[in-house]
Amino acid sequence: MKISVTVTLKKDVLDPQGKVVKQTLKNMGYANIEDVRQGKYFEIELKENDKANATKIIEEISKKLLTNTVIENYTINYK
Amino acid sequence: MKISVTVTLKKDVLDPQGKVVKQTLKNMGYANIEDVRQGKYFEIELKENDKANATKIIEEISKKLLTNTVIENYTINYK
Repeated sequence: MKISVTVTLKKDVLDPQGKVVKQTLKNMGYANIEDVRQGKYFEIELKENDKANATKIIEEISKKLLTNTVIENYTINYK
Repeated sequence: MKISVTVTLKKDVLDPQGKVVKQTLKNMGYANIEDVRQGKYFEIELKENDKANATKIIEEISKKLLTNTVIENYTINYK
């Protein structure tokens, strides 16, 4: 089972990486860029056919390892 | 308009970051993790209501700045 987890910074957390990308795009002439926020993306292949079990594992992994829940949010996508 | 771009390493490109995450998960006791690949995620807010124009800009940005097309692929998602 292939599952992806997207980790993004919470709304009120400053994102210097995103700011740099935004500024670079502006310097390249893209004037209509309003905001850029950068995050992480994980593609996980799991030996587990039961979706409920898989969800449990991925939730656990996301909270314990992939995300710093103080400043980040995560979204889980099934493929 | 909010658009997200996910950048992942091509299939045959080694992903040391993903390997470390995978090994860490195994060490934490998650035996059924088959593979982990890590990528980047960009959330872009664009002052552009026409979807065709937005697509054109985002495609350009993805190729010129966000992605190293030699070793990476990108996927565009509209929200």
